[in-house]
This record gives sequence, C-alpha cells and structure tokens, in this order.
Amino acid sequence: MWQIYLTLRYNGGRTLLSDFNITIVGLGLIGGSYAKALRRNNPRNLWAIDKDQYTIKKAIDLNVIDECESMEKVLNKTDILIMCLYPEDNIKFIRENLTHLNKNLVITDVCGVKGDMVQRINNIIEDSMEFIGGHPMAGREFNGFDYSDENLFMNCNYIITTIPENTEKNIYKVKQIAELIGSNNIIMTTPRRHDELVAYTSHLSHVIANAFVNNTNEEANDFIGGSFKDVTRVAYLNPYLWSKILINNKENVLNEIDKFEENIKIIKEALKQDDMDILCSQLESGRIKRKEINLRCSH
Amino acid sequence: MWQIYLTLRYNGGRTLLSDFNITIVGLGLIGGSYAKALRRNNPRNLWAIDKDQYTIKKAIDLNVIDECESMEKVLNKTDILIMCLYPEDNIKFIRENLTHLNKNLVITDVCGVKGDMVQRINNIIEDSMEFIGGHPMAGREFNGFDYSDENLFMNCNYIITTIPENTEKNIYKVKQIAELIGSNNIIMTTPRRHDELVAYTSHLSHVIANAFVNNTNEEANDFIGGSFKDVTRVAYLNPYLWSKILINNKENVLNEIDKFEENIKIIKEALKQDDMDILCSQLESGRIKRKEINLRCSH
Repeated sequence: MWQIYLTLRYNGGRTLLSDFNITIVGLGLIGGSYAKALRRNNPRNLWAIDKDQYTIKKAIDLNVIDECESMEKVLNKTDILIMCLYPEDNIKFIRENLTHLNKNLVITDVCGVKGDMVQRINNIIEDSMEFIGGHPMAGREFNGFDYSDENLFMNCNYIITTIPENTEKNIYKVKQIAELIGSNNIIMTTPRRHDELVAYTSHLSHVIANAFVNNTNEEANDFIGGSFKDVTRVAYLNPYLWSKILINNKENVLNEIDKFEENIKIIKEALKQDDMDILCSQLESGRIKRKEINLRCSH
Repeated sequence: MWQIYLTLRYNGGRTLLSDFNITIVGLGLIGGSYAKALRRNNPRNLWAIDKDQYTIKKAIDLNVIDECESMEKVLNKTDILIMCLYPEDNIKFIRENLTHLNKNLVITDVCGVKGDMVQRINNIIEDSMEFIGGHPMAGREFNGFDYSDENLFMNCNYIITTIPENTEKNIYKVKQIAELIGSNNIIMTTPRRHDELVAYTSHLSHVIANAFVNNTNEEANDFIGGSFKDVTRVAYLNPYLWSKILINNKENVLNEIDKFEENIKIIKEALKQDDMDILCSQLESGRIKRKEINLRCSH
C-alpha cells in the first residue's frame, strides 16, 4: 500500500506528456482532432501553427491549444512537432523554418502516403533531430477545424513508419502519443511498405467509391439502399488532396487496381457461364474475409 | 370540434389495414421485419407460413403474428399475400397452392431481382388475382427471423413494379403497405426497369465489395480505416442468395460492370499520365454526386 501511495504522489498532476511542448502545424480536421485528443492528456504546452489566424484564435478561445507566442519562439521550445499539412507543404515548412527548430526535435506527420517525403525531410533536418512517420487511419468526409473531434482516433489503426536513423527512445514517444489520442492498434512498418498496403486498404477504396458513384443519376438515386450508400460513402472526399495522394502513390495504386480487376474478371466470367459454383465460392470467400474484419473491428 | 369528434369515433380502433387479412410466406430477416412492421398497423389478421414451425411458434409467442389455422384455411382467407422467398420458390409456392388461394388475392413480393418471375406468376394465377412486384430497399448483413427488426424499412426506398394487368385499386393497396411499414419514397416502375437500375445501385455494390475484400490478408487487416470498412461492408452477404440474384440479373449486371470499368480506366489513365486535372475532375464529379445522395438520405 505504501508503495502505491508513493507512486500516486509522485505522478500526482503529471501525465505522460507533461514534460513535452507539442506543436501541431495545420489545424484542419486531422490537426484539430489531434489537438483536441492531446489536450485531454495535458502536455506541458500545446501550440498550433496555421496560416488561418482566425482558426488559431478559435482554438485558443475553446481552450484546445495554449496561447501562442511568436512562431519562432514556439518552434524553438517545441519538443514534438506534428505536421498535419500535405506532404509537399510539410517539407516546405520544415525547410523554411529549420533555423528555428529545437535541436532535439522529434517530428511526426499524419500523411496518408509517405512517398519520398520521409527521406526528403530526413535529408533536411539536423542529425540531432528525428522524423518518424505517422498515419492515424481515421477521417471524416468533412474538412476543417470546425469538424474536428477529440474522439476521431478512438480505436483506430495507427501506422508508424520508421527508418534506420530512428531511435527507440523517440519511436516510443510517437507510440505513446498514438495510444494517448485513442489508437488501440499501433503498427510499425517502413514508409515503403506503408504505401504498398494503404494503396489497397485506403486508396483503392476511394478509387472504387468514385468510379462507382460517377455513374449515378437522378433516376438511379431513387433505387439506392444501404449497399450503395456504404460503398460510395468515401466518394465524398477532398478532390485536390486525394488527387495528390493517388498520384504520389500511383505505382502501388495501379498495382492494386490490377489485382481488383482480376477479381472482377472472375465474377464476370462466372456470370457469363452461369457458373453458380465459382460465383458462390467467390462470394463465400469474401464473406469470410469480411467476417474476420467484423470480429476485429466490432462493426 | 364536433366534426373532429365524429371523425375520431368513426375511425376508432380501425386502421388502414383493419379490413385485410395479410399473410407472409417466408419468415426470415425480411419476412420477419415485414411482419413486425405490419403488426404495428393492426391488420385484421396477420399470419405467416414458413417451413420452420419453430420460427412460426416463436413469432406467435412474441405476438408478431396471429395463431395460424391450417395453411389451406389461411390462404383461403388471405387478402394480401407477401411472398418473402427466393424467386423460384415464390413461383413454386404459388403454383402448388393455387387451389387454396382466395379468388381476389393480391400478391406482392420483396425480391431484389424480378427477372421473369412477375410474368411467370402472372401466367399461373387466375385473372381475378393480381401480382404486383415489390422491393423494399433495405437489408442487414444477418439472416433469419431472430435478426428481424420492425424498423428495418424506416425511410427506405420502396420500388413497386407493375405490369399492364395491374389495377389502380390494388396498386394502391401495395403502396399503402409500403408506406405503413416505413418507406418514405415509393417509386413505380416496370419489372424490367427495376432490374436494370438495381443492377447498378444494389447488385454492382455487392460485386465491388466482394472483389475488393477478396484481396485482403492478415497484414492488410492492420491497415484498414473507415473507407475500407464502408466499401466492404456488404461483402458480408448470403453467398447462395446473392449468386442467385446476380445470375438472375446477369445481363444488366455485366453491363453495369462494364460501365464501372470505364470509370476505373479513366482514373488509371490519369494516374499513368500524372494528369492532376482529369483526376481532380473525376473526384470532384464523384464528390458532387455523393453529396446529392447525402442531402437526400441525411447520411
């Protein structure tokens, strides 16, 4: 009992993040949700940088972030920088602000495709700094801070991409953050493998939803049920962002489209031949795979 | 006030369905949900026929349906028969029980594909009877009476298919029923046009979800987010039922697959050429179409 009491006293008021100043760059849907989720965990200071000063003011007024000093001072005092811009803009921001960055800075990001961003940022930053890629697999169909939600990352898969330059100590920090904002499944991989896998699980879903919904029309809209709504939901996306993502990952995406088309071909052939056996076995195989996902995700 | 009072007295205890004996054949997910939704509207008698007597007993015990007499007597007294079996089984049931059917019977169904079923049933039944096709566009990924839900059809699209032989009076009855079980959008069309449109809105969704999920594996399952779950949700289906549906509607389905593949091709070409303009315009067009559906369906 005495030991427990001591432990409690020692940690009283402190949290896992209370030693760190954290700054989020880009306070949109993901950056804003990140800030709200981190806020619950009381980092020493939580700051944000956004080109829209109105959003910054709103986030301060809502007590989501702390009052900011000058950007230079903020960057200088920041221990962990969470980049929530497009890949190119992440690189640009780091390049332009390199002289202001804390020498022991850990940088992470939230990009859905890593491409050569990880290597390029690593080439820019000083040896004492570290970039560790991150990808919380959660999102909404709306954009902007106003739609951000402190529970957006609850129970999400969170991919952390590492390169040989990364250290255990700093990888652990990013893992802790992923857990604290709500992820219940943190996966470690390389940037390259990340891009190969999300080309299938995320990017192809968006391609399919788009290609499917693009054939709809007024008449068909009266004939939709749950299946149509489910399959097309992610067609409501940010076209510019998603064009960037798909082009940045085009080789993997094209490869996944080919594999998907192979499966469509099997179904087409089975239909043409009235082959109940093959059709049934394809559907059964898909049912089993989807059931496995139901069991893992509880929905 | 006096008039209102009179009106209330006149209708007291009666409902739109209180003149009708309604019988549901096939008490699975859809038939069971239909029964539960109808029960709220107090038909004179609500009976059900199912080869599984245990399900019938359970439905009686739960007061979802009324105590059944012999099947022959039930059919003889039924004014509206709701067929909730597979298309072939609907035809078989009607053929085998023709002599027991009430001469003024109105028959409807819930099949997701009409094919030649409407014509074939129409050829079997007597001139004084009428078959009017129905398709409530709602479902769940589970089967059986135990998963049935009185709210399954709430706010669903309900397609009614008619042929020249159908009369206004009886079409109106089926419309009333569709409304009473919860549909907020009843659409009238021919069986042929129904099959063409659901080939796209429903059948293709299932084909796509299946072809997509069939490439998943243990590793990829750690990389899934909301988009994957949405696009694949309907891959959890009844393989036998869906093989039947797809083969019954194969010409339309193959046609829709072709159109879908055309859209995929546009995206592939844009990716190969790094053509941001075309890619962005495809994604934007899909976003607008999906937004229209959001506005209509409120989700």
